[in-house]
Amino acid sequence: MIATEMYIEAEQFIAVCYTELGKSEAEARSRLAEIERSITQYGSYEHTLEELRHGARMAWRNSNRCIGRLFWQSLEVIDARSLHDADQIAEQIFSHIKYATNEGRVRPTITVFAPRQGDKQIRIWNHQLVRYAGYNTEQGVVGDPASIDFTRVCTSLGWRAAGTDYDVLPLVIQVDDEQPRWYELPEGLVKEVPLSHPDIGRFEELGLRWYAVPFISDMKLEIGGVSYTAAPFNGWYMGTEIGARNLADFNRYNKLPDVAKLMGLDTSTNTSLWKDRALVELNVAVIHSFKKHGVSIVDHHTAAEQFMRFAQQEQNNGRKLTGNWSWLIPPMSPSTTPVWHRGFDNTELKPAYSYQALPYSRDDYKV
Amino acid sequence: MIATEMYIEAEQFIAVCYTELGKSEAEARSRLAEIERSITQYGSYEHTLEELRHGARMAWRNSNRCIGRLFWQSLEVIDARSLHDADQIAEQIFSHIKYATNEGRVRPTITVFAPRQGDKQIRIWNHQLVRYAGYNTEQGVVGDPASIDFTRVCTSLGWRAAGTDYDVLPLVIQVDDEQPRWYELPEGLVKEVPLSHPDIGRFEELGLRWYAVPFISDMKLEIGGVSYTAAPFNGWYMGTEIGARNLADFNRYNKLPDVAKLMGLDTSTNTSLWKDRALVELNVAVIHSFKKHGVSIVDHHTAAEQFMRFAQQEQNNGRKLTGNWSWLIPPMSPSTTPVWHRGFDNTELKPAYSYQALPYSRDDYKV
Repeated sequence: MIATEMYIEAEQFIAVCYTELGKSEAEARSRLAEIERSITQYGSYEHTLEELRHGARMAWRNSNRCIGRLFWQSLEVIDARSLHDADQIAEQIFSHIKYATNEGRVRPTITVFAPRQGDKQIRIWNHQLVRYAGYNTEQGVVGDPASIDFTRVCTSLGWRAAGTDYDVLPLVIQVDDEQPRWYELPEGLVKEVPLSHPDIGRFEELGLRWYAVPFISDMKLEIGGVSYTAAPFNGWYMGTEIGARNLADFNRYNKLPDVAKLMGLDTSTNTSLWKDRALVELNVAVIHSFKKHGVSIVDHHTAAEQFMRFAQQEQNNGRKLTGNWSWLIPPMSPSTTPVWHRGFDNTELKPAYSYQALPYSRDDYKV
Repeated sequence: MIATEMYIEAEQFIAVCYTELGKSEAEARSRLAEIERSITQYGSYEHTLEELRHGARMAWRNSNRCIGRLFWQSLEVIDARSLHDADQIAEQIFSHIKYATNEGRVRPTITVFAPRQGDKQIRIWNHQLVRYAGYNTEQGVVGDPASIDFTRVCTSLGWRAAGTDYDVLPLVIQVDDEQPRWYELPEGLVKEVPLSHPDIGRFEELGLRWYAVPFISDMKLEIGGVSYTAAPFNGWYMGTEIGARNLADFNRYNKLPDVAKLMGLDTSTNTSLWKDRALVELNVAVIHSFKKHGVSIVDHHTAAEQFMRFAQQEQNNGRKLTGNWSWLIPPMSPSTTPVWHRGFDNTELKPAYSYQALPYSRDDYKV
């Protein structure tokens, strides 16, 4: 048997994957022999669609930071490994967005492009497929402060920014050593939700909005020694991601002072708990608005309950639950959820979604 | 030089303590020679009052879980090392409670009793000097569920419980191998705060209350190799300790459903965020009521700001900040505080307050 790192990882993956899929030991042995021959001959091997699908799902199950893992088996896996042309990859991503958004009834989906081969890799430069631009201006930051660097990359590449608070960034794709190419997302493709509040009529005047679906596009999917460097995936939102972080964080949209003002709260003292009160109503607005527009969303209490069912399910299946407490607790009222009151083993299992280095040099784009 | 563990720890402590107190190297050397002779002759050594005071303060500064460390230098240290009689120890504790409560203008205070000598140790069996009893009854838990075990210990020892939701537990003291002795806290000694809400008039109908000061009494204070097994200490409360944990936790007083009902919230669905809304108003009531009764309390936003000043102060003094993120973040709206957005090195330094084994066997008290 060969002892390359890739083969060792393949062996571990096939053993678990084939057992979970109910395949025989003979099948696993025969498949591993095939993988060994392929690695010896070509330096790599190709996953079957079944392996790819189950591997991507296992990687979700192993995501220690994700509270939504109860639904790992429902992940739709789109095989786009045959594409090597940036235009075609962009088209495929547009269709992922459309399919997963599904007019609001969000479907957890991943599109897997060709894996890294030696130095060659496909990279999506965006952090998320849909994300708002951010600009430093003389009047302060416009848009999302988290996007300032990447927005400058996009404008350097030739993108013309509108300069509003909610400009959807273009898609930037790089295939191997080619120049990166950017693509405006087609008109009407990106579903967005304007925020209103069930009881506070004037809430709409704040002009807040958010996009319907979080599509993470900068992580790599590692299955059995193979690295899929472009594998954008999405679930649906948990409300607090928008209402307690994106729109609330001091270094993001920082909207709590505006919400508090609208509510007539006393912002001159911490002891009025105005931040806490504004935070709750902003989150009420997020959930209310998503539901009103027919877009899937889960509140943090329900998500925490679902996570506890996942924990139970893993135990029932004889698997050890892994998790990262500091990411699993919601950022609002965390101690009211059961997740707060237990610990987790943060061992990182594979298959996995993992971070990868920025595909561009910040120096090249003066960011 | 002797190399006992105690001497090694003493050496480390004296080096840092004397430098911080502005003493000369000669003084430190001479003191260490004295400590060495004492350990050689008696197996231990005695801290000067100055060492004890600074050591107890350093231990507060080193408390990775404590958000209130900005005030470490203000800790009042009461030297009660000469007492070995349970009655006298109880009297001393009563006077700590009175001094620290100070009619509401809480003074951070520690009383240090004699340290462990071989197998001999003084132990306070209570988790906190003031704490409400808890009882399993046929109608469910009455009082504080966290106190059920210790309450049974107290009744086994002869304490007669009133059986209400807010019975202050007796003080239980054990000196060396003597039988533990229990003491009812004197009438009028324990300040308590009945909870009302600035805007919700009917809030008082819930009959909620909490004691004014948290006095931790089951941790040991370790300074320079010496273990003070009875060293009760207090700060003032951060509001969320009461409003987001003691009265709110599902496995504690679990009052969110009652508060939500009073507020007329829709508790039939998670998506109304009724828990979050009730949580905020319960915490508003806690802060409001403590202020109304002239009892020191800090909200979690102010405490987080103070902690960031402490972090800066430590850096200015050339000390490395240590901390435990999961304890430092407040249990309500944590991402609205700066503590959430940074990491901490959780290395545990000495002097330290640390946990110690239960002083009684649960079997002996059928708990």
